[in-house]
Amino acid sequence: MELSDTQSERDPRGWPINQVGIKNLLYPVVINGSQTPARFTLTASLAGDLRGTHMSRFVAMLQEYRQDLTPARLGEMLRKLKKSLASESAQAIARFPFFVEKKAPVSQAAGFVAYEAQWDVILSGPRPEVTTTVVVPIGTLCPCSKAISDRGAHNQRGQVTLSYRGNTPPKVTMLAALVENAASCELYSVLKRPDEKFVTERAYDNPTFVEDVARNVAQRCESLTGTRWFRVEVENYESIHFHDAYAVIEAHLPRRTRK
Amino acid sequence: MELSDTQSERDPRGWPINQVGIKNLLYPVVINGSQTPARFTLTASLAGDLRGTHMSRFVAMLQEYRQDLTPARLGEMLRKLKKSLASESAQAIARFPFFVEKKAPVSQAAGFVAYEAQWDVILSGPRPEVTTTVVVPIGTLCPCSKAISDRGAHNQRGQVTLSYRGNTPPKVTMLAALVENAASCELYSVLKRPDEKFVTERAYDNPTFVEDVARNVAQRCESLTGTRWFRVEVENYESIHFHDAYAVIEAHLPRRTRK
Amino acid sequence: MELSDTQSERDPRGWPINQVGIKNLLYPVVINGSQTPARFTLTASLAGDLRGTHMSRFVAMLQEYRQDLTPARLGEMLRKLKKSLASESAQAIARFPFFVEKKAPVSQAAGFVAYEAQWDVILSGPRPEVTTTVVVPIGTLCPCSKAISDRGAHNQRGQVTLSYRGNTPPKVTMLAALVENAASCELYSVLKRPDEKFVTERAYDNPTFVEDVARNVAQRCESLTGTRWFRVEVENYESIHFHDAYAVIEAHLPRRTRK
Amino acid sequence: MELSDTQSERDPRGWPINQVGIKNLLYPVVINGSQTPARFTLTASLAGDLRGTHMSRFVAMLQEYRQDLTPARLGEMLRKLKKSLASESAQAIARFPFFVEKKAPVSQAAGFVAYEAQWDVILSGPRPEVTTTVVVPIGTLCPCSKAISDRGAHNQRGQVTLSYRGNTPPKVTMLAALVENAASCELYSVLKRPDEKFVTERAYDNPTFVEDVARNVAQRCESLTGTRWFRVEVENYESIHFHDAYAVIEAHLPRRTRK
Repeated sequence: MELSDTQSERDPRGWPINQVGIKNLLYPVVINGSQTPARFTLTASLAGDLRGTHMSRFVAMLQEYRQDLTPARLGEMLRKLKKSLASESAQAIARFPFFVEKKAPVSQAAGFVAYEAQWDVILSGPRPEVTTTVVVPIGTLCPCSKAISDRGAHNQRGQVTLSYRGNTPPKVTMLAALVENAASCELYSVLKRPDEKFVTERAYDNPTFVEDVARNVAQRCESLTGTRWFRVEVENYESIHFHDAYAVIEAHLPRRTRK
Repeated sequence: MELSDTQSERDPRGWPINQVGIKNLLYPVVINGSQTPARFTLTASLAGDLRGTHMSRFVAMLQEYRQDLTPARLGEMLRKLKKSLASESAQAIARFPFFVEKKAPVSQAAGFVAYEAQWDVILSGPRPEVTTTVVVPIGTLCPCSKAISDRGAHNQRGQVTLSYRGNTPPKVTMLAALVENAASCELYSVLKRPDEKFVTERAYDNPTFVEDVARNVAQRCESLTGTRWFRVEVENYESIHFHDAYAVIEAHLPRRTRK
Repeated sequence: MELSDTQSERDPRGWPINQVGIKNLLYPVVINGSQTPARFTLTASLAGDLRGTHMSRFVAMLQEYRQDLTPARLGEMLRKLKKSLASESAQAIARFPFFVEKKAPVSQAAGFVAYEAQWDVILSGPRPEVTTTVVVPIGTLCPCSKAISDRGAHNQRGQVTLSYRGNTPPKVTMLAALVENAASCELYSVLKRPDEKFVTERAYDNPTFVEDVARNVAQRCESLTGTRWFRVEVENYESIHFHDAYAVIEAHLPRRTRK
Repeated sequence: MELSDTQSERDPRGWPINQVGIKNLLYPVVINGSQTPARFTLTASLAGDLRGTHMSRFVAMLQEYRQDLTPARLGEMLRKLKKSLASESAQAIARFPFFVEKKAPVSQAAGFVAYEAQWDVILSGPRPEVTTTVVVPIGTLCPCSKAISDRGAHNQRGQVTLSYRGNTPPKVTMLAALVENAASCELYSVLKRPDEKFVTERAYDNPTFVEDVARNVAQRCESLTGTRWFRVEVENYESIHFHDAYAVIEAHLPRRTRK
């Protein structure tokens, strides 16, 4: 018996769909030789006169590409998907944790720290456009609090989300290190007492507002070769406030004017 | 003693900041005569040569406007904030739940249903631009599953996020009703057995893909007077899949061409 | 036509159900004269030989009691529910935000701060048992970091979850204040520079580990009249670590022995 | 220079601490030969007269055991930790995703599905006690809706959380399969049209309330060899309601009486 194909019916409403596909798919992949779960959104555009897309293609395609996931291979996968679905554009978002083994600054005790990364790949023109995002926890110490207080200074954990587009996709570990260098101090998984003393004093000697962290990241992104665009978002989980402090810089490079 | 004012220092890095302010502030406000908690992000731009913004102004301003919160009053608040901080632009996001008393379709049993709404107000030019968003749970029944199966059809809860800009900010209850009408069935808080029969059969008689819901919402938005832009995002928590089905339509109106 | 009543069928499996009902119901209620959304879980036990409970009763009952919600009225509601469903026990969980207007310590600038509260009410014996929980953000400054560092000390936002059972249900505002007094400093929504100096120095003069905060809360709970049980959970969003520091004390009072 | 050891000071408050340690640590581990991130809470008790625990030990210990993580090895790690910290008890919680390659029921198309697992290991007496938990998405079709409706039946995605203690720790894949067999239908990552027809009809032929799923799981747990305790929690993301349906059974085995 032939099963009817509702998706392939004509649609009379005349509304093309920008993106249709699947979301929240957690899938086992291999990135840089390491197995990891990654969370996917995979979509393609749909012409205005077609009723539905073919949802099973998205997972089937990922099954084919999961063994070696890179921005370039995601672009290739989108090319196939776009062709197979006769779409004008296709998009993939992959979000995954990544780990770096870090040594404590004095004791050299080793432990892993965890960041999150995301690749957004869009194929609408001839070549895929790749945006790489990292989410990096940081420490910030308030310059105002330090300046006005007789002793101490409020400090806190913050989080930076940096999205980046360049001539080539950057390494996520490089972006994470770039962000950590922009803060009052970086965080660790193992710290012994001499390390804790070091990190405490380093943060105190290096106070940063959310504005400072955003600008430090912006400067570093500008000085990277091949940067075309970035967006940096800094959030401080304020240790004296119920709310978070927040700053955003977004820029296309090279910049024409400075203010 | 004069406390030093670190924020007002000159900044040598030359990077203007698009947005700086506070995030994740839960504040008690009055909307449409009803008390409700709302979650705020409040930001303003900062010139490239200034070190920091004045964070305490944001909450102080909200304290002043909280008793009667509307998109228009948020715009007025931003005007004050922008002036007080000498900023080029200012933004406010307010997210809050809203309730509608709904009657069951047959028994007329009454109960409240809960939606979420968000106002995004941006003041960069002479007049604030307001985007109104609603998040609405819906029921969807799969047209393909119905067509190919001898009995039954898979259905599920879904969620629609509709963002809208028009000549005037719409009522959030109107947007929620518009979305509910675009689905296989709407949801309720109290259903007795005759109601459950009604809703089950209504969904079965009215199957919709995520694509259909997105298009139905698009058609309804286009037919509203004064629509300038909308974005509709439909997610189905698929009852046969681990992942969600997903569709997005975004459009500026009036549309020039149809496809 | 009579609709069949599947729920009232006999069940052959012989498994009584501890709790069955509804979860994640956001409902508009009035607490202490103020409107607020509250999130509910409402359940009742089901005998081993009955197929199903009657889900619509739960919301109908809440609709009746929503205008004045207290632990005592929730107990009364459970009594009705238990009788109506012929259950051996019934439970209600209500979680809601509450706001306190707080003045900055020096400038006296006023602003609202937000906490979360939860009432867990269980009716299994003759009288309902009420547990009151508050979730309170705090500031903590590390005693070790202060002791070993030449300047500064790492500090951070933390969160305390205190659950409490006493002879009478306590006020949630009293529990929140009890917790805030146990930390290095309390948090605010509006702080001007002289306030920031005050709070910074207060935290520096009053360092606390997660262990200290847990013990300070324990001591204060023990000294309250009528305390029968409490559980305090402290989490620090460490400003030098990727992970959180965490401590728990749970105790029935009066304690027999001290160690 | 000797850095002072604040943690080792005497504490005058006389409150022993049930658990103190670290939470929310995401760490790369190897489970069953596969790399995966796992989220940890690691704690130990602290005597009433000691000021603080030694936080860096927890991560150092995990660094040592991460290459082959099993419940037994976690128990061994806790034994070392307990001794090293002179604690009366120690606990570890590890939560991690796991994947199963599943074939569609008709087309045999293969794809991975993702579940979550958790090991809770407590060492207080001579031997560690292990609780294994799985979180499994399922499909449920309402028996009442099917019985009363002329066509169709509401169905939805649900989620089952099953915690289990037996004479030996069970395989998480076995527990996940046990849960899937208790529902109206199991979920898939890839389904072609003949599969969708199969799954739709299977769910329609096999309606289950949350009560039914909880009881089916309970029966299956009882029939496993060596079960000592379980707790099953079923949530339905109702496709006709704003809230979720919810059922819980918790039991120690063997049961003495049936009702």
